[in-house]
Amino acid sequence: MALRSGGPALALLRGRLHLSGPGARGHARLGRSGAVAQPAAEEPGEDAEVGTRKKTFAEVQTERLNQAERTVLIKCPSKVHEKKLLQYLSSHGNVKSHFFFENRGINALIEFSEKSSIASLQDAVGIPSASEHHVVPFKSRLFTFTLKNPVSQRIEETPIHLSPQCHIPVKDLIEKLCLADNISSQMYILLNEYQLTEENIKLRFLACSLVRDFACAYFPDSTVKPFGSSVNTFGKLGSDVDMFLDFCDTGKHATKMKKGPFDMEYQMKRLPSERLATQRILSVIGDCLDNFGPGCANVQKILNARCPLVKFSHQPTGFQCDLSVSNSIAIRSSELLYIYGCLDSRVRALVFTIRCWARVHGLTNSAPGTWITNFSLTMMVMFFLQRRSPPIIPTLDQLKELADEKDKHIIGGYDCSFVSDLRKIKPTKNTETLEVLLCEFFEYFGNFDFRRNSINLRKGKEVNKPESSPLYIWNPFEQDLNISKNVNQPQLEKFIAMARESAWILQKEDKTQQMINKEPWGLAALLIPFGKSNSSKMKNRMKGIGSETIRSLLDSLKLNNANSQQKAVGK
Amino acid sequence: MALRSGGPALALLRGRLHLSGPGARGHARLGRSGAVAQPAAEEPGEDAEVGTRKKTFAEVQTERLNQAERTVLIKCPSKVHEKKLLQYLSSHGNVKSHFFFENRGINALIEFSEKSSIASLQDAVGIPSASEHHVVPFKSRLFTFTLKNPVSQRIEETPIHLSPQCHIPVKDLIEKLCLADNISSQMYILLNEYQLTEENIKLRFLACSLVRDFACAYFPDSTVKPFGSSVNTFGKLGSDVDMFLDFCDTGKHATKMKKGPFDMEYQMKRLPSERLATQRILSVIGDCLDNFGPGCANVQKILNARCPLVKFSHQPTGFQCDLSVSNSIAIRSSELLYIYGCLDSRVRALVFTIRCWARVHGLTNSAPGTWITNFSLTMMVMFFLQRRSPPIIPTLDQLKELADEKDKHIIGGYDCSFVSDLRKIKPTKNTETLEVLLCEFFEYFGNFDFRRNSINLRKGKEVNKPESSPLYIWNPFEQDLNISKNVNQPQLEKFIAMARESAWILQKEDKTQQMINKEPWGLAALLIPFGKSNSSKMKNRMKGIGSETIRSLLDSLKLNNANSQQKAVGK
Repeated sequence: MALRSGGPALALLRGRLHLSGPGARGHARLGRSGAVAQPAAEEPGEDAEVGTRKKTFAEVQTERLNQAERTVLIKCPSKVHEKKLLQYLSSHGNVKSHFFFENRGINALIEFSEKSSIASLQDAVGIPSASEHHVVPFKSRLFTFTLKNPVSQRIEETPIHLSPQCHIPVKDLIEKLCLADNISSQMYILLNEYQLTEENIKLRFLACSLVRDFACAYFPDSTVKPFGSSVNTFGKLGSDVDMFLDFCDTGKHATKMKKGPFDMEYQMKRLPSERLATQRILSVIGDCLDNFGPGCANVQKILNARCPLVKFSHQPTGFQCDLSVSNSIAIRSSELLYIYGCLDSRVRALVFTIRCWARVHGLTNSAPGTWITNFSLTMMVMFFLQRRSPPIIPTLDQLKELADEKDKHIIGGYDCSFVSDLRKIKPTKNTETLEVLLCEFFEYFGNFDFRRNSINLRKGKEVNKPESSPLYIWNPFEQDLNISKNVNQPQLEKFIAMARESAWILQKEDKTQQMINKEPWGLAALLIPFGKSNSSKMKNRMKGIGSETIRSLLDSLKLNNANSQQKAVGK
Repeated sequence: MALRSGGPALALLRGRLHLSGPGARGHARLGRSGAVAQPAAEEPGEDAEVGTRKKTFAEVQTERLNQAERTVLIKCPSKVHEKKLLQYLSSHGNVKSHFFFENRGINALIEFSEKSSIASLQDAVGIPSASEHHVVPFKSRLFTFTLKNPVSQRIEETPIHLSPQCHIPVKDLIEKLCLADNISSQMYILLNEYQLTEENIKLRFLACSLVRDFACAYFPDSTVKPFGSSVNTFGKLGSDVDMFLDFCDTGKHATKMKKGPFDMEYQMKRLPSERLATQRILSVIGDCLDNFGPGCANVQKILNARCPLVKFSHQPTGFQCDLSVSNSIAIRSSELLYIYGCLDSRVRALVFTIRCWARVHGLTNSAPGTWITNFSLTMMVMFFLQRRSPPIIPTLDQLKELADEKDKHIIGGYDCSFVSDLRKIKPTKNTETLEVLLCEFFEYFGNFDFRRNSINLRKGKEVNKPESSPLYIWNPFEQDLNISKNVNQPQLEKFIAMARESAWILQKEDKTQQMINKEPWGLAALLIPFGKSNSSKMKNRMKGIGSETIRSLLDSLKLNNANSQQKAVGK
């Protein structure tokens, strides 16, 4: 009920932000500020002001990595005395921020102000006695806090707040959505429920930092950075942590020692290819994680893949992790999405909505296959936003034009340059509501001539397909690759059919009537698998509308290609 | 010819020590002082004085390990300019000692005065360019020094001195021995040619220290220490480096954090057994050496052995290495031998002589089998020296009586205590020459009632055999084990036969006549496989003496057990 009006809804949303402490602003910039501001204001113009404050991708990464290095994770007893834990920790240094979360018991993430506090803590921490189990004495930043006499401790405190690390089930989401004022608000609620929280982002960077400890043991200049969903502002709670090992400045030293008649070089293992070196290093680090890393389980080496990687589950943080070696283009993709995500709050809300919708309807799947990937889907949303009039986000070519010397990146012969300073990008003049954008998205792609045209984000234009893949989305950087090559014709047609069905639902439904009947309306109605609704109205709707109704809808959408669409609708 | 007189021989021997610089005294204490002093003086009484200056085993180990951590290894061009190399290095810190040696080219071992010099050097050293080969960027203490324009460098220096890292072939040794004055001198010459040099010991500790760098990456409190031949004063040039990984003070921290109502422990991988933990750790370190370690080749994991180990060849130092995990009893054995080796210079000379003799005659073999091991042979010599009258070395029980509180070591229920301070051990009153001892050794064991008696170094007495193994030598620490259980009856009989043959040769031969005839005499004659001598005299001897001659010799040796001896001689 409270969510019906903008004010209390905002309060609730802000409530979830409350815990994150001094770091919250950083996160708000990263992803949440828009979500918080929009349900009430919903005036994209505000983004201009936000834009001037926003940090570059690199700045955020550096700050987060630094933060993670000052952070430890502590497993706590179920009835932990928060004050006493903090009091104990403060003897090792100032605790800058902390939060608790549930993951195989209660855990506390503790961020110290100074990295040296960790050494002080580590020095005081004991090794588990080997009476029952023998341990591998690898000293990490993962600790267990126990009460010696649990019974004698008075539990006087209010229960600790647990920061959620996964999103609510779709069923619960639908209930929440039904309480909203309008579809735009529904979309922001969805974004707010699904997007990474400040706490979850900290935990992701900590996971990387803990893996970095393994790599640094042998390669002190190396670092482990997250990429993809953890940093591109489009990550969903519960998504995997993609991380890569970066040998930062190994190139730096190569130029030293150039003066004088001598050269002094390290003796190093030489290998015939960089790929082999990558495989060897990942293999050993995988073994180290497997054998020494507390809570590193199910370590799988997938070294013969195009991009060799090590998969493992990191139980202390609860993440499924993929560790690979620095992939410059993947990082550029992360930054590009970061920029688009920061430019206008509608971007992320629409992407999260479309991805949730696609998942519900079986258009995406976490397993590899012929499904459309989340990345492809996100690119389709971006393209759609480039095509609005006026455009909501610039084309990649426009971002490249704004790039200066330090933004120059030529990777493997591809020009991957684009502006990094968000302030240089002019805010959009487009003021369409999210509701309008959602409807228009379904109509746009329900109507798109996939047979002839491809999606090109660099130019922001529909371009003739260079080859016959059913769905052709130009890789933004490796321009000769199609990022959706895996999608087959039936999957594409399913997407088109769902888009049309959704456009139809949004246009035809009567919100007031549905709310009176306590039936899902708006976005909520779109998140119920078509034909599986428990609501009698929904069942009636699905029964009532036959292929004839759809055909008349198709006519109203002025389709160019009646044949393929009929086929699609027939599915 | 120069070797005939004590003076020039000594000069030559000292010449080999010359290069080792300030560290030479340490080595002289460890193994060489006796060898240098004895050929001239040959007065065991001098050892008493030496004894008061000798460091304990632990002190030597600590000093050497510390030295190794300040040491780097540099691969040099074939025509290295010594002064310029040192000049370059001195810009990073004071070079305390250095030497050159040949191993796949010219190498320099450089010991800095301060460990920090290494960091300074490492910071200035480049990574090989990846143009031809890709490298694993693990930064070790192994460098390559190159001249940029080899042609333009003026080679004005005298050639650098190369410190030998392997002993001379037996053939060359025999030639050298023939030039000596007497058999005792021959034995010291053999010792001097075969024993570890100061430089070789430094190189062994460096190899351990380089492996330690791998272990410390994950277990900063751990250390890698050599044991066995590298440190027990009985090591031969060319012997393998046995090293073990020690998790030093992991137990220390376990007692911390005992006050207050809380406990904080590290989260650590738990394993059901210590053996499994050992196997896992060795396995990963083996992989690290294999994949990251420059010049670590042929890495073999032998993890299912009673004592799990990783074998590898360490090409930069030229050693074959065996890495295991801390084995307390093996370390006690090393220290016990160290003490015996330090007590009297005749001990090491006799052991080296017997071992060389045994090897020539196929009584020992580096492959596992039914052969007598070097360790068993060494124990037999020790036992023989305990049995002299007056004894040359004390029994293990006597050493235990001298132990104080800090010498107490109970390992796996066995009392492995013995005195560590050499000054507490009274010097022997025995003044027998090495020549006498050698003859007596052959007679003693040619005569020993192996069928009934066992060798017990703890008591220094022949003891009834507790079981029927052909050769029974009590393990000095694990008293219920026979260290020569592997030896079968034919091998034992071969040993007895060779001992008798050797006793006979030493007693019968005419040194003056042999020297005139330029034939091998004394020890030299014993180091020619019986029946394989090229000398016509030797051939005649082998032809001339039939089983009858031997039988009369047997009588002269007053054998107790004519039957088994005849069998042995018949082999």
